[in-house]
Amino acid sequence: MEELVALCKRRGFIFQSNEIYGGLQGLYDYGPLGVELKNNIKQTWWASMVYDRDDIEGLDASILTHQEVLKYSGHEDTFTDPMVDCKSCGERFRADQVPDYCKEEDLTEPRQFNLMFKTNVGPVDDGSSFAYLRPETAQQIFTNFKNVVDSTSRTLPFGIAQIGKAFRNEITPRNFIFRVREFEQMELEFFVNPGSDDEWHDKWVELRLDWWEEQGVPRKAIELLYVEGDELAHYSKKTVDLMYKFPHGTEELEGIANRTDFDLGSHSKNQDELNIQAKVTKNASSNSKLAIQEQNTNKWLVPFVIEPSAGVERAFLAILNEAYRVEELKDGKTRVLLSLKPHLAPIKAAVIPLKKNNKDLVDLAYKLKNELQSMKLGRVVVENTGNIGKSYRKHDEIGTPICVTVDFDTLEKNKVTIRDRDNMSQEIVEIEKISSFFKKKISG
Amino acid sequence: MEELVALCKRRGFIFQSNEIYGGLQGLYDYGPLGVELKNNIKQTWWASMVYDRDDIEGLDASILTHQEVLKYSGHEDTFTDPMVDCKSCGERFRADQVPDYCKEEDLTEPRQFNLMFKTNVGPVDDGSSFAYLRPETAQQIFTNFKNVVDSTSRTLPFGIAQIGKAFRNEITPRNFIFRVREFEQMELEFFVNPGSDDEWHDKWVELRLDWWEEQGVPRKAIELLYVEGDELAHYSKKTVDLMYKFPHGTEELEGIANRTDFDLGSHSKNQDELNIQAKVTKNASSNSKLAIQEQNTNKWLVPFVIEPSAGVERAFLAILNEAYRVEELKDGKTRVLLSLKPHLAPIKAAVIPLKKNNKDLVDLAYKLKNELQSMKLGRVVVENTGNIGKSYRKHDEIGTPICVTVDFDTLEKNKVTIRDRDNMSQEIVEIEKISSFFKKKISG
Repeated sequence: MEELVALCKRRGFIFQSNEIYGGLQGLYDYGPLGVELKNNIKQTWWASMVYDRDDIEGLDASILTHQEVLKYSGHEDTFTDPMVDCKSCGERFRADQVPDYCKEEDLTEPRQFNLMFKTNVGPVDDGSSFAYLRPETAQQIFTNFKNVVDSTSRTLPFGIAQIGKAFRNEITPRNFIFRVREFEQMELEFFVNPGSDDEWHDKWVELRLDWWEEQGVPRKAIELLYVEGDELAHYSKKTVDLMYKFPHGTEELEGIANRTDFDLGSHSKNQDELNIQAKVTKNASSNSKLAIQEQNTNKWLVPFVIEPSAGVERAFLAILNEAYRVEELKDGKTRVLLSLKPHLAPIKAAVIPLKKNNKDLVDLAYKLKNELQSMKLGRVVVENTGNIGKSYRKHDEIGTPICVTVDFDTLEKNKVTIRDRDNMSQEIVEIEKISSFFKKKISG
Repeated sequence: MEELVALCKRRGFIFQSNEIYGGLQGLYDYGPLGVELKNNIKQTWWASMVYDRDDIEGLDASILTHQEVLKYSGHEDTFTDPMVDCKSCGERFRADQVPDYCKEEDLTEPRQFNLMFKTNVGPVDDGSSFAYLRPETAQQIFTNFKNVVDSTSRTLPFGIAQIGKAFRNEITPRNFIFRVREFEQMELEFFVNPGSDDEWHDKWVELRLDWWEEQGVPRKAIELLYVEGDELAHYSKKTVDLMYKFPHGTEELEGIANRTDFDLGSHSKNQDELNIQAKVTKNASSNSKLAIQEQNTNKWLVPFVIEPSAGVERAFLAILNEAYRVEELKDGKTRVLLSLKPHLAPIKAAVIPLKKNNKDLVDLAYKLKNELQSMKLGRVVVENTGNIGKSYRKHDEIGTPICVTVDFDTLEKNKVTIRDRDNMSQEIVEIEKISSFFKKKISG
């Protein structure tokens, strides 16, 4: 983990947030390379959900959330962690994360601490008007269910996908970007006919494993954990956690839950007429019937929902961890390598002029950069340091799939040298064939 | 404006946030089409900054912000609006936005109301540990200045670009998505040598006007407002606002400010050694020297910064407004049309089987959809309603550049009919040429 953290800072993937003022715990900023990797992960997820399938719509809802949304979702009552105070050192800890230096006899009894951030909204500051920062993106998918159905004429089964920030006031954030207070989720709520929910749940587990494999996190690196009995969240009939061996230990990478009709049922008006199967609180506030008409019978039906819910930061960490390796070279030296899948690489290609101050070489490098950039396959850079070996090492370390070197043969014979990140092979390629070489390398 | 709002709701661009519980003022959710348009605007801006240029790096910093960042930036003292209470109705208003039904003699003297949201962070809730929701993305660019310089070895001039949410507790949010409490910014901080700042300022005004033109907001629709004297923000030497005639009136679409060395100077340690030109508060908290070494002299220098700052929602509204038209047709009927630039259109193509229940036609439509989708030019859908005319009208209204109709000629002669959104012309195209037709249409 320490090597990864150091690489992330040195190369501009991840910085401690608010660092110049001592930092804020559990918050991170994504630098020039981090923002590209993060965006690539998000776009790949979005494409796999909203573009490549025909049964999913997208959504982007607000972070500030009405109190009643999180009341009826159950978060106000149950979104808590047990917290203890240490009477000796005066600090507070999550009950299962008390450090060794606190003696057990100094600890208070655990009490429940709600993890939601809240903020006052509007010009009156008497506590009467506040909103929560959403603790998950899921709830605003449920509250928009009718809006989406009405504007798209969807019938079951169909899903709504959302990517966005969520916030949790963790008592003790830790393990780098694994457990943080501000993070991004990629959540799908897939609405199905009750009765077909078990089948769809199994199907989504397989689909998500396939997706992780395509991102470089292979099936064999993931254990399936079937969450059962008391461990299940209040809304869940069945949950499968994809457990991944992070540098700090095996923990949840993604959870895939069968949330039944709990959420739509909880947020719906006229609950009594809807034959809701989950145990829901009486809702006297909602103005919307969150149900759909069965196509044949026209009867109103509250769909069940299957939720694959993944965190962008955890994806980032798992993908980096799988891609990171230190290789011994034949000459006894080592190289650090990020063997990222090309579609995830922050920089797709680096064009390197052999000499830093040779105008012809440098101009041609920029020309080639512009040509590759215009293909819209991701970021391409010119690496004008005048040191080829150093440039190769840098781009190995940040995962750039290819380096294109522009030398005097390029000027004379219209040929460049393309070096492959993974096997370090060098290939002479004619200039007019660079585009197709590049396209094949990046998008397969 | 009302027509636009109705279209946005009906077709799934924009919904009132938290609507099922009565809504929260100044918050909106982006539906299946809105999220695509928004993402397209953001990606286009990002590409124009970070990819197409060679002198800009990206960043994605946290929303929760350390109190000292917004103390030294000046926001704690000056990010306020004047507020008045009406003693008669009991409501509060921004002093310049009091409704007619409040009598002047009932109003209190205006007092300053700080627009920043704050929230308690960590398990101790005694007000000692809080963070702000950032009121702009700019500040975390400045606080990360050294991190970015150190990890990228940049020299002047260069910029750092960021897209992300910002929050302002507006006293009276209004005008649809124009003035809201949660919004997204696209901000560039471009660092230059002092002395070259005026020239770069002029250059960025021109570059941004070009960008707006490419998004369908022409130069002639934008007035330049030179903000001067007392109207200037405390950090600004000169500001040019791009003023656009929104449906509710002419207001700022983007601001381009010369912020001098105010921000880096304000957040830097060792201010006394840095010959800072702006008037900054003494900073005893920062642990970082936010300066850069001049290449020739190795002397430390605090760059000036030019900031083009645009709002995603305002871009969304201006682009929709320019694209929206109601056309009279030859038969006396009308059609509603969103003539969006193809790269911004939420859906790039709709493939329409002539008959809803004909398996051969429908299968072929999905096959073509997958082919077009795999080109990664944006979302492609199958429109299987069995009603060609209705499908055309829908896709005119949501801005889909082309509709591809699959009929019996397609099965027999491998030809489809492609209808153009803007001129309604229909063209017979061979199946094998659809890809290149599509590519030319969407990416020019």
